[in-house]
Amino acid sequence: MREVAVIGVGMTRFGQYPDQPYAEHGVEATRSALEDAGLEWNDIQYMYCGAVNVGMTPGNRVAAELGATGIPVVNVENASASGSTAFREAYFAIADERCDIAIAVGVGKMGRIGGGGGGSRAEQLAARATGPAPPVATFAMRAHRWMAKYGTDPKVFAQVAVKNHYHGSLNPYAQFQDVFTLEDVLASRVIADPLHMLECCPTGDGGAAAIVATPAVAARLGRHPAVRVTASAFAGIRHEDEPPMTVTASRDAYEQAGVGPDDLDMVQLHDAFSIEELEYYAELGICEPEEAERLVIDGDTALGGRIPFNTDGGLISRGHPLGPTGLAQVWETTLQLRGDAGPRQIEGANTGLLQMIGAGGVCLVHILQR
Amino acid sequence: MREVAVIGVGMTRFGQYPDQPYAEHGVEATRSALEDAGLEWNDIQYMYCGAVNVGMTPGNRVAAELGATGIPVVNVENASASGSTAFREAYFAIADERCDIAIAVGVGKMGRIGGGGGGSRAEQLAARATGPAPPVATFAMRAHRWMAKYGTDPKVFAQVAVKNHYHGSLNPYAQFQDVFTLEDVLASRVIADPLHMLECCPTGDGGAAAIVATPAVAARLGRHPAVRVTASAFAGIRHEDEPPMTVTASRDAYEQAGVGPDDLDMVQLHDAFSIEELEYYAELGICEPEEAERLVIDGDTALGGRIPFNTDGGLISRGHPLGPTGLAQVWETTLQLRGDAGPRQIEGANTGLLQMIGAGGVCLVHILQR
Repeated sequence: MREVAVIGVGMTRFGQYPDQPYAEHGVEATRSALEDAGLEWNDIQYMYCGAVNVGMTPGNRVAAELGATGIPVVNVENASASGSTAFREAYFAIADERCDIAIAVGVGKMGRIGGGGGGSRAEQLAARATGPAPPVATFAMRAHRWMAKYGTDPKVFAQVAVKNHYHGSLNPYAQFQDVFTLEDVLASRVIADPLHMLECCPTGDGGAAAIVATPAVAARLGRHPAVRVTASAFAGIRHEDEPPMTVTASRDAYEQAGVGPDDLDMVQLHDAFSIEELEYYAELGICEPEEAERLVIDGDTALGGRIPFNTDGGLISRGHPLGPTGLAQVWETTLQLRGDAGPRQIEGANTGLLQMIGAGGVCLVHILQR
Repeated sequence: MREVAVIGVGMTRFGQYPDQPYAEHGVEATRSALEDAGLEWNDIQYMYCGAVNVGMTPGNRVAAELGATGIPVVNVENASASGSTAFREAYFAIADERCDIAIAVGVGKMGRIGGGGGGSRAEQLAARATGPAPPVATFAMRAHRWMAKYGTDPKVFAQVAVKNHYHGSLNPYAQFQDVFTLEDVLASRVIADPLHMLECCPTGDGGAAAIVATPAVAARLGRHPAVRVTASAFAGIRHEDEPPMTVTASRDAYEQAGVGPDDLDMVQLHDAFSIEELEYYAELGICEPEEAERLVIDGDTALGGRIPFNTDGGLISRGHPLGPTGLAQVWETTLQLRGDAGPRQIEGANTGLLQMIGAGGVCLVHILQR
């Protein structure tokens, strides 16, 4: 397999755009990634598009807006991990010598929630009030299991949301950009006990894109410090008594990249609900489960701490339109590894891990390195 | 790249099954392919699933019924070519050494058309009466363009349908299994002039699966004569003044396999509407466009002729539930190359080409060889 580099990234600001077709988000993200790479649409040789329930052949609709260049366009759908899956497939297109420059694009259109004009905080609050949807119910049960097993105060979960909203406040592409205190989070409506509204990711629309290429192409363009994809791992669901998907996929990824949890400078992961961060700290081998709450309390996983998690705000603050979410993780990690993350920059970041899970039994873990 | 072999195929009889969840079709097709290969579900290391608009993560729903073995499951959607895309991706998983045994599964659920109890000929007729849908309108215009350019009598298009319905009458898995005369086809309702109902593919449900593996695995199992995948080509849409997708993809495929149109013993292609066969005869390099009608009139492309097309009935008779269609082509070609196609068997078939197009600008061409 050939080495693969990320040479361009782009995204739109996630949010609710009821009057904007999803293809526009994909086009905007793609143009932004092309500009970042210093390429034209004609230079792209292969495209994978990740999206969920937006309609037939979404990638082709995005490509059609950019020009009929005859390239293969493959649409993939793996629930929350659709964008990560598109990234992995584009990575294989380069690694396996199918082409030299490929793009992964993700688009999302969750529809207007609530009945109003769309997008205001008040309307989102109103929509949240319609009651628990199945995902939040599952994660609320997982939160209770965690509390029973490790004695964790649910305020620690809320503190994860405080941290991620703070990170999002530093990210101009985040859906939410507000700083919330612990009191704010705990005062927000309980969606499914013990999880409050501000501990749950919002629904929204958006696009994100990442261009991958051979190291030779990256060197020729020479625009940015090289960002290499050193691992792409995928685990499906197993029986209850076997290791969780994140354990399996991250072990595989560490082996591929030749690194361990101690080598990570940052992690982006699936924090659709705050409880998840604690679970994954342990499953990624960052700490023992009983130590997870200390990482939050001591600020180890906040920007400025030992190993910051969800430095762009995560699903909770940056948003989660399904299709583009995994590619927003690639965007953030790439900017960090280049040293271009502005007020969110982690000093001297060399190695980042990206984890995404999807309903139905999907877990992808990638490692990017400078 | 490693060589890739098809080691197991399975499908359900396509049709309208309003009370059956789509996952059951996928499970049935997968079990059938496993039995054909002499494998257990536990032996499968990677899965791609092709489907259109059936809901989120359809492949994972099929896999969940078969057992939580932890394998990667990736869902792909490329309109009519979704099953062909799943096949191509599974092929890459073997060719690029990601694993040794992979499965491509396609599922389709087109919904009940008409309002009745579903599935009867009368109800389908009634549903057809709701008027032309966009695809048939497009292909009717293409038929008129063809007639104007080459002076072809539209009865030749109808004769394609007669041929494919005859082929389907020999296939126990075809949705339709009736022999229709030219008079029958011409007496069926005009859907969009000059295309009659019996020249259009039906809507329906179903599943199909193909297991691919290394030649070493195929040799170890030793159940069937080896069927090799010698080409996988993909062309996207280009501007009007450039060659059609099928020209580009088939040229690439011929080059990969080291064969030409004269080496083909059979072709399965996207005959959603009868006119398409004539267009693709020419685009695949079988003949010049002005000669295409002679192939139909002389029976060259019927079973028993020089180069039979759509030997299982094609989309028109075998059916076209989108997700599984491309994999039904793999099923038919594999049986033919093994010499297991029963009354449809082409004597000494060594090389088959499979073409599938998809809305949005997708064309895949595969070549399978004994």
